Amino acid sequence: MLTLEDILSAARRIGPYIHRTPVLASTGLDRLLGKKLFFKAEHLQKTGSFKARGALNAALQLQDPKGLIGVSSGNHAQGVAYAAQVIGVPALVVMPQDASPTKKAATRAYGAEVYDQGVTVENREQVVRKLAEETGYELIHPFDDLRVMAGQGTQALELLEQVPALDAVLVAVGGGGLISGIATVVKTLRPEAAVIGVEPEGANDAQQSLQVGVRVKLMQAPKTVADGVRTLVIGEKTFPVMQNHVDRILTVPDEVTLQAQRLMMERLKQVVEPTAGLALGPVLMDYDLPERLAVIVCGGNWMP
Amino acid sequence: MLTLEDILSAARRIGPYIHRTPVLASTGLDRLLGKKLFFKAEHLQKTGSFKARGALNAALQLQDPKGLIGVSSGNHAQGVAYAAQVIGVPALVVMPQDASPTKKAATRAYGAEVYDQGVTVENREQVVRKLAEETGYELIHPFDDLRVMAGQGTQALELLEQVPALDAVLVAVGGGGLISGIATVVKTLRPEAAVIGVEPEGANDAQQSLQVGVRVKLMQAPKTVADGVRTLVIGEKTFPVMQNHVDRILTVPDEVTLQAQRLMMERLKQVVEPTAGLALGPVLMDYDLPERLAVIVCGGNWMP
Repeated sequence: MLTLEDILSAARRIGPYIHRTPVLASTGLDRLLGKKLFFKAEHLQKTGSFKARGALNAALQLQDPKGLIGVSSGNHAQGVAYAAQVIGVPALVVMPQDASPTKKAATRAYGAEVYDQGVTVENREQVVRKLAEETGYELIHPFDDLRVMAGQGTQALELLEQVPALDAVLVAVGGGGLISGIATVVKTLRPEAAVIGVEPEGANDAQQSLQVGVRVKLMQAPKTVADGVRTLVIGEKTFPVMQNHVDRILTVPDEVTLQAQRLMMERLKQVVEPTAGLALGPVLMDYDLPERLAVIVCGGNWMP
Repeated sequence: MLTLEDILSAARRIGPYIHRTPVLASTGLDRLLGKKLFFKAEHLQKTGSFKARGALNAALQLQDPKGLIGVSSGNHAQGVAYAAQVIGVPALVVMPQDASPTKKAATRAYGAEVYDQGVTVENREQVVRKLAEETGYELIHPFDDLRVMAGQGTQALELLEQVPALDAVLVAVGGGGLISGIATVVKTLRPEAAVIGVEPEGANDAQQSLQVGVRVKLMQAPKTVADGVRTLVIGEKTFPVMQNHVDRILTVPDEVTLQAQRLMMERLKQVVEPTAGLALGPVLMDYDLPERLAVIVCGGNWMP
């Protein structure tokens, strides 16, 4: 099980290579939405998303790797590419053919090779395992890896220092790596704060999994504008952490996600991904939420 | 003539009502463009642009005004509306009928009345003078007013504290209020730094005016994506300051302005207006520029 100590070690390990991202706020937006909102600006992180944290924490613990290999619809790809650059080895990243061209280009710009021929959200896990065997590169899983989960959790250490007396944290949920890391920190250091996961309507596998107590797998890639959370099933390692530490999972329809993304661009003047809008989504809906809310702005790799 | 003392007084006067905006930087962008760039983030200012500074500095010096009236294609409108809110009087803003709907809506959201029936860039000065007489409201000119110029200059006081050893400042030029304020500060406190104005190709009235030594007026509104600088002629009061303190004016074609805006969104993850892209434009071109450059990010009131 993931512990606070793992995350404190990760913070020391990756500290020299990542940004301590700011927390942004807007009194106008607070007035409009009736809450005190704190936006943890991971779109300003190296590579434009929090994924650099987890990939680096895994990469920095490897003994003489030949190279790194990863699978991703986008941001983890750039995380792996950046981590490989930091430790000075080649990177190979498997991306679905229909992944965002911006994210593919950015992954190549970090010096990684992108493999996408015939790759889909459904078959990508098999493709990457086969390529890992062929190349001898070290596989860095996008979420189901304790080192990756610990790396993602480091942003919550910063957040709790930056925002006193937080009532809840809103986190988009894909495979569960991000929320596992954050929940472990928050529930250890500030247990009275709620950890709330957010999924797109129609892609609520995490919500269903927590309800029934076993992992539920979507049989095909969910259709959602939130391209950062198109995983089919949460991880073996992330699931028990989520069972222990996540208070609720809420769902948001795509039109609210886009509305929330637009509001963040208009009021915070920040370029954010739809998946960042997903995390803010519940605040625009009827859900009963406490007063002082942190929203994890997971990434900004998106262009109009 | 505008003096440093005017600008220091303005800074004390408006300080409680404005943000000290951050300076943003991106090592990736520096590498790409081969310069050390410092982005003065006035798109994160109150009202989403630097115009709040000048309008406030004028409004706070009025004796019992009945209300404020202004004319603007956008950002000064919000500045006047915000200033009126701060001093607790009504605001009326004359905007061209084809001004950005986002900016009109934002101006109304600050509590101002927008007058746009039959208003064009060409006739707006007459319209506003007539309405000022009818209402008895105090006219706050968007640029040709020493109080407004002093207010805009306050950002340069911050900039010189935030960025040591600056070689040049790039500033978009419309009526010249912004560059007059900035140039007065820079040429007094750091005369070795160049103050460089930037205009759209085909709207280079300031460049021509400085070349020939008299103000040159465009006979119709310039066609440019940089909607913040569609003025026909620089001001009577801004012109002598520019003659004294501005080193060069450079021109940028619209396609480079849009490319620069896109780069700022992609690399800085900031929502900025095309006119902010205009200021960065020269760095993407063949112009001979020094190493350490500040770019004034004039505003972020724009939506894709």
